[in-house]
Amino acid sequence: MYDLFDNVPQKEIKCLDHGFVRLIDMMPRLVPDKEVTADAAIVQAARVSYGAGTKSVNEDRGLIRYLMRHSHWTPVEMVCFKFHLRLPIFCARQMVRHRSASLNEISGRYSVLPADFYTPDVDNVRQQSQLNKQGGDIQIDENVAAKFIADLKHTDLEAYQLYEKYLEAGVSREQARMLLPIGLYTEWYWECDLRNLLHFLGLRCDKHAQHEMRVFANAMLDLIRPLVPMTVEAWEDYSPYRGAVLLSRLELEGLRQEIDYLMSRVNASFGWHGETINLRKLAVVSENKREQQEWVDKARLFGLPW
Amino acid sequence: MYDLFDNVPQKEIKCLDHGFVRLIDMMPRLVPDKEVTADAAIVQAARVSYGAGTKSVNEDRGLIRYLMRHSHWTPVEMVCFKFHLRLPIFCARQMVRHRSASLNEISGRYSVLPADFYTPDVDNVRQQSQLNKQGGDIQIDENVAAKFIADLKHTDLEAYQLYEKYLEAGVSREQARMLLPIGLYTEWYWECDLRNLLHFLGLRCDKHAQHEMRVFANAMLDLIRPLVPMTVEAWEDYSPYRGAVLLSRLELEGLRQEIDYLMSRVNASFGWHGETINLRKLAVVSENKREQQEWVDKARLFGLPW
Amino acid sequence: MYDLFDNVPQKEIKCLDHGFVRLIDMMPRLVPDKEVTADAAIVQAARVSYGAGTKSVNEDRGLIRYLMRHSHWTPVEMVCFKFHLRLPIFCARQMVRHRSASLNEISGRYSVLPADFYTPDVDNVRQQSQLNKQGGDIQIDENVAAKFIADLKHTDLEAYQLYEKYLEAGVSREQARMLLPIGLYTEWYWECDLRNLLHFLGLRCDKHAQHEMRVFANAMLDLIRPLVPMTVEAWEDYSPYRGAVLLSRLELEGLRQEIDYLMSRVNASFGWHGETINLRKLAVVSENKREQQEWVDKARLFGLPW
Amino acid sequence: MYDLFDNVPQKEIKCLDHGFVRLIDMMPRLVPDKEVTADAAIVQAARVSYGAGTKSVNEDRGLIRYLMRHSHWTPVEMVCFKFHLRLPIFCARQMVRHRSASLNEISGRYSVLPADFYTPDVDNVRQQSQLNKQGGDIQIDENVAAKFIADLKHTDLEAYQLYEKYLEAGVSREQARMLLPIGLYTEWYWECDLRNLLHFLGLRCDKHAQHEMRVFANAMLDLIRPLVPMTVEAWEDYSPYRGAVLLSRLELEGLRQEIDYLMSRVNASFGWHGETINLRKLAVVSENKREQQEWVDKARLFGLPW
Repeated sequence: MYDLFDNVPQKEIKCLDHGFVRLIDMMPRLVPDKEVTADAAIVQAARVSYGAGTKSVNEDRGLIRYLMRHSHWTPVEMVCFKFHLRLPIFCARQMVRHRSASLNEISGRYSVLPADFYTPDVDNVRQQSQLNKQGGDIQIDENVAAKFIADLKHTDLEAYQLYEKYLEAGVSREQARMLLPIGLYTEWYWECDLRNLLHFLGLRCDKHAQHEMRVFANAMLDLIRPLVPMTVEAWEDYSPYRGAVLLSRLELEGLRQEIDYLMSRVNASFGWHGETINLRKLAVVSENKREQQEWVDKARLFGLPW
Repeated sequence: MYDLFDNVPQKEIKCLDHGFVRLIDMMPRLVPDKEVTADAAIVQAARVSYGAGTKSVNEDRGLIRYLMRHSHWTPVEMVCFKFHLRLPIFCARQMVRHRSASLNEISGRYSVLPADFYTPDVDNVRQQSQLNKQGGDIQIDENVAAKFIADLKHTDLEAYQLYEKYLEAGVSREQARMLLPIGLYTEWYWECDLRNLLHFLGLRCDKHAQHEMRVFANAMLDLIRPLVPMTVEAWEDYSPYRGAVLLSRLELEGLRQEIDYLMSRVNASFGWHGETINLRKLAVVSENKREQQEWVDKARLFGLPW
Repeated sequence: MYDLFDNVPQKEIKCLDHGFVRLIDMMPRLVPDKEVTADAAIVQAARVSYGAGTKSVNEDRGLIRYLMRHSHWTPVEMVCFKFHLRLPIFCARQMVRHRSASLNEISGRYSVLPADFYTPDVDNVRQQSQLNKQGGDIQIDENVAAKFIADLKHTDLEAYQLYEKYLEAGVSREQARMLLPIGLYTEWYWECDLRNLLHFLGLRCDKHAQHEMRVFANAMLDLIRPLVPMTVEAWEDYSPYRGAVLLSRLELEGLRQEIDYLMSRVNASFGWHGETINLRKLAVVSENKREQQEWVDKARLFGLPW
Repeated sequence: MYDLFDNVPQKEIKCLDHGFVRLIDMMPRLVPDKEVTADAAIVQAARVSYGAGTKSVNEDRGLIRYLMRHSHWTPVEMVCFKFHLRLPIFCARQMVRHRSASLNEISGRYSVLPADFYTPDVDNVRQQSQLNKQGGDIQIDENVAAKFIADLKHTDLEAYQLYEKYLEAGVSREQARMLLPIGLYTEWYWECDLRNLLHFLGLRCDKHAQHEMRVFANAMLDLIRPLVPMTVEAWEDYSPYRGAVLLSRLELEGLRQEIDYLMSRVNASFGWHGETINLRKLAVVSENKREQQEWVDKARLFGLPW
């Protein structure tokens, strides 16, 4: 048996100024063969569905791509990852909204919380976007940034000194902590199956996620990619949060009109209807027969000639 | 306050030969105004996110469409529906896989199960598809169908008579039931929030779902549509299980090539590059500014001229 | 049909200095009869289990008590409550750990957060307990308390002024908020079924919960009690977080020894074994036959004479 | 690193006539030291709560017992188990109600289901209990049992032959299966964290569970016990489904009365109040100080002298 962790390039990634993501454990962890990855656990579970029918079967990569393309997510739950994270409270508050994970966090009622606060770099203090109400991607004026950082550091330091002072004076930890700003770092163990993890990563690696959250999500993705390479590859191809695009019913209609218009122009220029265009074969998007057929079916929806 | 159930055209739909779906209750049930639907509960929850910012806000329909288009699903959890279903065990076995619902089923340990079994109509006995391993949509030869139905009825009847006989002989209900085929009807209360209900309906109203399951899913959809009309409308437009289409990264590339080719043919026929085409405005797919902008962004991905 | 909300003594309870719990909606909301409560939805779902067997049936209260006593929790999921809460972030962080609820919170990325912070009363600043590492119940010296409150107010005010200043200077809301302490109030809609709500209340109304959290949990309990009176009554009687007591295997053995010892003393004083004692009937703890029988069975475990 | 599976006495247990439970994988699987068990993952997660406070710490067993005694269940979610089961459909239908597990089942739409049906042994055909409506534990008359088994076998065989016949005639698998009785074996991979697994085992190893289900649940318990020995031991001591007993508020009152009565008898016989009895120390139920203190607190509730 081989330990999948033996071949992982890294098991920890530093994030922001005092944070980290550490990969602690996973299931499956041991595989029978050096070439096998944790993708195998997904394939194994999926194949139980075929029972005796498994004989005439797809190879693993094809099966995983099929599962992902058709939202057959349950076998993907058979892989689990456990992380140890250190992240600011405002990130933790976003992450905890993903209710399918298990987590254990350092308790501010039991423990004295360490004096680490997140402070952005000068070139990472961002302007409020007017269009995107959620946040901003554009750097703010450097002077403003420098002052903001200085005031933030000062606020954090003062708050922490008061926290220490009142702990010493005997105030309960659960109340003294009310002084502390939400940039304070917290820590937790966070365990999640791959299905729910990919859902989380789709939302939190996305450009609409807050930059600071994205740093942690991207680190998690980097840590798991070599362990479930086929699944991540398929997800990159088929998730609308990654390389895929979702066309609404309205957009589908719009696309149809556009192609119709282009076709009419082409045909008009030749004086007859569609012949030349129709002789051309539709682009090949996949060697996989089934996937190519699915593409042909969609192309028909758009009115593409083939 | 108005009771939303007062204006519902129907609260029960018969399904298959002995089954039904009944809408028992929902939340919200009472609304302050005759014009208001349960969509309002989604809007209310979504707007808490904007806090003081709610003043300069979208109207309800636009907000719901925005939420659905961008997978902001949590406000959709604020609406709940409770159903009473009578369905064959093989359907119940599929439905119970949707783990986010709450359910209470008639117990074959406590109760004597009633003698109702599902038998398909002659024109609904289906051939095994060779392509689609899951099932089939094509009617089988009528003679085979008639014999199958007769044998099925006979099997069910004989099994039920033995069940009764051994109950009378004192065999425990929990064991006597082992005689009964999975076409037997069962009953349950099934409660689910609208987010998870739409996920369920996406999968089970789909053409890949088993016909018998689809009958129940479609009935549920018909029952809720008038109660959350905006949400269902948006879902029909934006769900890849309904009117929308998901283009994989590979298909996106294929589409780009096709459009590129069409463009080159158009331009070739005019002897210059793209001018005529570019003068044309891209199709308008929505009056909603934001939605139209999203379409423009996707059209650019495809290389559509505008 | 009667609206259950019409007879509720209160639908909002003020909590701490700037917080509240408001009951927004519930399912079931309408009942056919003035005497009926939402307990009826639990009974209805439970009875589907008995199918045809429902004829010879328990009355509602007895059935609900039976369900609670035997941890038949699924019918209790059929009742849902929706609340609107305003609570400090450090409480929100505890509450969000209950993953079975649905929630929508005001977003510090979208909105400017209002300037309300929690400050305890002088007589509610607590000492750190040495025994109970979690918190403390004993009031701290009044001078310390007064200083703590003053410093907390000052910290909150300064932080909020900086927050406003940097928002004005154009810093993104998602970053400016990092200045704000975790005593800041937040707001959310929170929806939960009664099974999971009682589990939450068991933990958070408990004396081990932080005082500030308990205030909100108790308010929620007070709001729902008149709406599901039988269920809450049964829960008070049977939950080890309320009036019931869980005896571990070791304690059970201990109790047996104690009773054995007492019995031996009694018998010794009379010079024979157990006769007198055995003549006495065991205490009647319930009119309900089944419940009394369960008590007799437990009393036997302890070695109690009867 | 040591593979926990290397020291497991068994990884598969045969159940009923054609079923089995196989332990396929777990997390954690590798431990740094031969003496360590998977209990360590629980301890590790629990200790993150104490942060810097971990220095003055309990040893592992004590901590696990503390967690279990006080329902601090979240760290127990950090251990996961994956099983492969073969079980009759009527058992599968009970097991799937535990919604926190992940599962993949052989599909009767994709595959031809194998011809295995459960048939009880003659001495395991049970009478319907009149008291316990759920089932029965008492063997039925052997003649009835033998006939029941013969009829069951015959029904199963005939049904399966028809199933094969109609598959051959081209009827879709998803419809042909409607002939098959619920004693048919099915197969699945089933993955669950230890918290939810223990909850499942509490209910399904219990004497109220159906015998056939209990066989599978007990097999699962036997497979995991050597892998998380401390956790299972603590669960046996503290779960009301195992060695512990839950006293309702009413029973607590009853116990108090009983003890009061015994005390009065003892005291009466000596002519004074409680003195002798009070001199005796309360039974020691645990070496663990905190646990003993909890026992003292409960004993006070009962009015036990100490």
